[in-house]
Amino acid sequence: MTMSARIRILGLDPGSAVTGWGVIDCDGPRLSFVAAGAARAPRGESAAGRLACIFAALRAVIETHRPDEVAVEETFVNASPRDALVLGQARGVALLAPALAGLEIAEYATNRIKKAVVGQGHAAKAQVQAMVRALLPAAGAQPADAADALAAAICHAHWRGARRLARTVMEAQA
Amino acid sequence: MTMSARIRILGLDPGSAVTGWGVIDCDGPRLSFVAAGAARAPRGESAAGRLACIFAALRAVIETHRPDEVAVEETFVNASPRDALVLGQARGVALLAPALAGLEIAEYATNRIKKAVVGQGHAAKAQVQAMVRALLPAAGAQPADAADALAAAICHAHWRGARRLARTVMEAQA
Repeated sequence: MTMSARIRILGLDPGSAVTGWGVIDCDGPRLSFVAAGAARAPRGESAAGRLACIFAALRAVIETHRPDEVAVEETFVNASPRDALVLGQARGVALLAPALAGLEIAEYATNRIKKAVVGQGHAAKAQVQAMVRALLPAAGAQPADAADALAAAICHAHWRGARRLARTVMEAQA
Repeated sequence: MTMSARIRILGLDPGSAVTGWGVIDCDGPRLSFVAAGAARAPRGESAAGRLACIFAALRAVIETHRPDEVAVEETFVNASPRDALVLGQARGVALLAPALAGLEIAEYATNRIKKAVVGQGHAAKAQVQAMVRALLPAAGAQPADAADALAAAICHAHWRGARRLARTVMEAQA
């Protein structure tokens, strides 16, 4: 088969104020940077208005970069119930945008993402940024929100490979 | 002026599993029932799939009934951070649907809604259902989710009136 195995992955790191996003291409073990950024809800807007801004920005990212699969960071919840509710509102919109585009969405816990990228689950933000830059040289120095989103995409690229391998082994044994 | 003062209000009561909705018309102090129901996320769907179902249902309600204004119950948060996050995700979608339709959205705390409908902030669910039925006879007996959404719409109808009165008094004094 000569069909390309290239998969485009969108990573998302939803936050109350800023939702980071990052797009990579994954061709077997080879990863390459496509684009990254942050959807920022303007201050002074109502809660609903802020959600509409994040939604519009994510719709635009999906339409521009046309990812095949999406990886979303499972937010670490040690916030107050009030903060968790506000974070959940932004997260709902970040899950909805790719769902409406019919995309497959995988969720990964923060420490699983750090482990996939840095090698340990309790890595500092700066370590994640440095490793994202090392793995995706074309990305350059990315701010934390975009780096975290790229890390989610990298984590998904790794686990996709592991899942594919497990499937192949099982099929060979069958 | 012969312009009608009739306003159509959509009330929403977002929940993790079910989002109640109710539509009323408000012409000065006169309220009338239009429609009510519940958007239910199917079991077995992923989190993103469930949010997409709720969103599609609320878009359909808005397109069918074309409300002028929206009232959303401010969820009482005594849940765990994890439950608050999941509730927030549903709430984000319930705020997004009317925001994308360009509708004005007012948020009301649960006890303010109960006070507006029953007369006291700590009324039981059954009392809210009974008063909604008394105030909107055409609604008949509504299940709790739809009744709570209608109660949010009734609360907004009351507060709209109070705000309008306050504005009129201030203009008369100016």
